Amino acid sequence: MDELIEKIIQFRDERDWKKFHDPKDLALSISLESSELLELFQWKNSQQAIEQNYSDMQDEIADILIYTLTLVHDLKIDVKDAILQKINKNAEKYPVSRFKGSSQKSTRH
Amino acid sequence: MDELIEKIIQFRDERDWKKFHDPKDLALSISLESSELLELFQWKNSQQAIEQNYSDMQDEIADILIYTLTLVHDLKIDVKDAILQKINKNAEKYPVSRFKGSSQKSTRH
Amino acid sequence: MDELIEKIIQFRDERDWKKFHDPKDLALSISLESSELLELFQWKNSQQAIEQNYSDMQDEIADILIYTLTLVHDLKIDVKDAILQKINKNAEKYPVSRFKGSSQKSTRH
Amino acid sequence: MDELIEKIIQFRDERDWKKFHDPKDLALSISLESSELLELFQWKNSQQAIEQNYSDMQDEIADILIYTLTLVHDLKIDVKDAILQKINKNAEKYPVSRFKGSSQKSTRH
Repeated sequence: MDELIEKIIQFRDERDWKKFHDPKDLALSISLESSELLELFQWKNSQQAIEQNYSDMQDEIADILIYTLTLVHDLKIDVKDAILQKINKNAEKYPVSRFKGSSQKSTRH
Repeated sequence: MDELIEKIIQFRDERDWKKFHDPKDLALSISLESSELLELFQWKNSQQAIEQNYSDMQDEIADILIYTLTLVHDLKIDVKDAILQKINKNAEKYPVSRFKGSSQKSTRH
Repeated sequence: MDELIEKIIQFRDERDWKKFHDPKDLALSISLESSELLELFQWKNSQQAIEQNYSDMQDEIADILIYTLTLVHDLKIDVKDAILQKINKNAEKYPVSRFKGSSQKSTRH
Repeated sequence: MDELIEKIIQFRDERDWKKFHDPKDLALSISLESSELLELFQWKNSQQAIEQNYSDMQDEIADILIYTLTLVHDLKIDVKDAILQKINKNAEKYPVSRFKGSSQKSTRH
């Protein structure tokens, strides 16, 4: 992951684009890319969408990750740590004993 | 990254949640989590948002990555490869010589 | 508003498109169109965006309203009533005496 | 519609909230509210979602319209005109003769 972040930031620095990358605009860009991914599923079920748009899905997922890892870098977040901590929080909120096989939202926040 | 994907899928399998994870709903969930991140910047500039919500930002970014890596796993995408290919495509679309310091969109698609 | 809804539904019926308009896909389409509006503000402040993209903004806002009013029609919602009720709820949640000039979120839900 | 816009702006002016309503943040808010509507459909098909969340759907649709009409007001857009023009553009892009019963995207832009 660190190696990917390095390549992403190198791409940006070569173009001198950091000055455009206000964190609010990066968060907005993650949202826009995730909408472009979602658009590949519009008016279709998953199977139809995957058959017709698999290659575009790879590109849109890459775009989401590129912007997310850019923001991770700029906010100096330890991404591995953030994910593991979130999994632990989710494990407390959704204990296996109560939520196995259930899609209900937890009432704990 | 592979290790993180493994932990994420293990969390899901313990709860028997794969059956809910239709790819269209996973794409939708990435979009919803990216909106929750964006909401932390609503009515604020970046500096205010970061000062007030840094810890929540880590959590929302983790959520975006957890759903994105779940979809990566389910669609059998080689995520490192997808990101590197996308960086190469972007490098062709936005050559340093023409786009250094410029935020204009490329007209090449 | 009723007249506009009628025109929107007439456009759809002439093309026999109701069969594609699953409410989940309509909700998804509203979200996608609102992202297209938001994209007109990406990497820009409001003033720059309005100067460069005013005409596109009109189109994207029209798209948001067209899909929203389609969903309103299909879900048999009384849209005027829904808006007035929501304004009343907001007025209780954000009394003038406490929230005048303040952007804080209410803690009442 | 004009009467609704007037009520919405009156609500805002009583709270002196115009100063927070930067158009970029209003566009962002429309997107966030449309995500809240979409969330009511997460992990569900349309029928399940409507059965479980009909009243919340009314509220979220009202929120989308409230922010959209606020932006319409602030950008001085003639909303009825914008919608009718967009329907005409769509009618040219998707002529009945070619698109009746078809969900394909037009290749004309």
